[in-house]
Amino acid sequence: MIEDVFIKKLFDNDRRSVARSISIVERNNSESAELLKNIFANVGNAYRIGITGPPGAGKSTITNQLTKFLRKQGKTVGIIAVDPTSPFTGGALLGDRVRMSDIGQDNGVFIRSMATRGSLGGLSKKAVDAADVLDSAGYDFVIMETVGVGQSELDIAQAADTTIVVLVPESGDAVQAMKAGLMEIADFFVLNKSDRPGAQQASAALKTILAMRGHDEHSWMPNIIKSIASENKGIPEINDEINRHKDYLIKTEKFKLNREKRMRVRIKELVEEKLRSELWSESRENSLNLSLEKVVTGNLSPYHIAEELLVNFKNQI
Amino acid sequence: MIEDVFIKKLFDNDRRSVARSISIVERNNSESAELLKNIFANVGNAYRIGITGPPGAGKSTITNQLTKFLRKQGKTVGIIAVDPTSPFTGGALLGDRVRMSDIGQDNGVFIRSMATRGSLGGLSKKAVDAADVLDSAGYDFVIMETVGVGQSELDIAQAADTTIVVLVPESGDAVQAMKAGLMEIADFFVLNKSDRPGAQQASAALKTILAMRGHDEHSWMPNIIKSIASENKGIPEINDEINRHKDYLIKTEKFKLNREKRMRVRIKELVEEKLRSELWSESRENSLNLSLEKVVTGNLSPYHIAEELLVNFKNQI
Repeated sequence: MIEDVFIKKLFDNDRRSVARSISIVERNNSESAELLKNIFANVGNAYRIGITGPPGAGKSTITNQLTKFLRKQGKTVGIIAVDPTSPFTGGALLGDRVRMSDIGQDNGVFIRSMATRGSLGGLSKKAVDAADVLDSAGYDFVIMETVGVGQSELDIAQAADTTIVVLVPESGDAVQAMKAGLMEIADFFVLNKSDRPGAQQASAALKTILAMRGHDEHSWMPNIIKSIASENKGIPEINDEINRHKDYLIKTEKFKLNREKRMRVRIKELVEEKLRSELWSESRENSLNLSLEKVVTGNLSPYHIAEELLVNFKNQI
Repeated sequence: MIEDVFIKKLFDNDRRSVARSISIVERNNSESAELLKNIFANVGNAYRIGITGPPGAGKSTITNQLTKFLRKQGKTVGIIAVDPTSPFTGGALLGDRVRMSDIGQDNGVFIRSMATRGSLGGLSKKAVDAADVLDSAGYDFVIMETVGVGQSELDIAQAADTTIVVLVPESGDAVQAMKAGLMEIADFFVLNKSDRPGAQQASAALKTILAMRGHDEHSWMPNIIKSIASENKGIPEINDEINRHKDYLIKTEKFKLNREKRMRVRIKELVEEKLRSELWSESRENSLNLSLEKVVTGNLSPYHIAEELLVNFKNQI
């Protein structure tokens, strides 16, 4: 049972309530669902930025510098650092420490790391829910930072208004990014560490690939912004490009359409979750368990069992 | 419509039919579902081995050498190499070429790489379906090789009879693997490149972590096998450990129980998939689309819409 006074404190951006709320959505249980329902009316005012790219590209440093830049303009920033690959990159842990020492003491900034650490699965859902929490607490910007590796960064990109893909010159990332479908999710690219050898070629390669995609005069053409985040170079340009993209989204109504698309996914999830919980009642779980041995020994087809369970559900609904 | 003659050729291990069948399950559409239903009766005879670990640990080389070893014993081997991280590791591409030159010409071996390449999502389901195809075609062993990064390797481990986690001495992988929950999925570890400095310490660290987990006398205690796969050292020991684990599974009935557990997941998926397709009829999709604008402008709650859609579905079922 979540009390009104707790929600009120969250909306007032009480730091302890924000932290506790994120812990609640991380559990992804009935309490999380109740919390999300209670905060919904206050969600939707933050501008959401997704930052993704390979390990070591400098995502954390860019997040750090961009946050400082936004703070100087009087904006507040909530940050969710997601590290779905954590087994072997250790990104979240390191990134955390770098950031904490720098912007972590600022009251206009809230940082939360979410890594797998033994509890794999559903991480991107939890990250998006945590973004909702920060949104409801009134942060002007919510930055979701994630290592680009598979489904997670797609989910994060879908939840962001503007998605930035960070690459570095030397890794041949452009071609890999294209293969992985990252070209499709980037609203713009940041070529970080652009003082390193190969920056010119990497930028040219990216441009060639982007040109190959083709686009008409009304569609958005992703730019390539060069930065050296560790020296704080290129950050105003990144901020400008975010604003340019935001203006484009608003002018073309895509801002609204994208949010509708996200809401559509969310509502479908809500319906399916509810239906699933009714479907797998104790008695149907038991009936499934009793059939399993016959299926494994080949005496019954799983398709037959599935059909029976479905008919049973429909009759009892 | 899948013809009986095609299924017959697949069961006879006609290479072209096997390749085409995997392409069909990769599409993950109604034709895939039909194919899986048609092959089901012939699935369940292959022994399934999952091989996972960080990029560069030598998974492909071990798969290669283990396959050659099994071939010498007259066994046939189907291989699914999954690379969910492909954006920045390029693992599948490279691994493919290494293997193809070596064992790819052998008629008793079938190799298929599955990487994300622009179509992210559902990769592990497709990989497990592809394993079913190879199983139905009569391969004695099916090896599923995947980079350990998040949900995918858990799905693969769940679909394997024996899961091997490959680590190397220098990377501090043991501690990372523990954090990521890989300790829980390993039936045994292979410490590859064990001639490198730090092998002794890495092995000791792994043993300490494993001992910390604790286990009673009846439960399985994962061993650590040392190998230098590039010099073909340690492969018979890996094979022995697979057999020892297989014997343990059969003796304790876990072999059967694990397969029942897998079938349980599969049947649930079948029921939910069917239900979902009935739920999202054209008319309900339309009704959802019409409500979206009101939700985004804050005039309607998504929870209210979800409830309405659910009631509508229940009334019309």
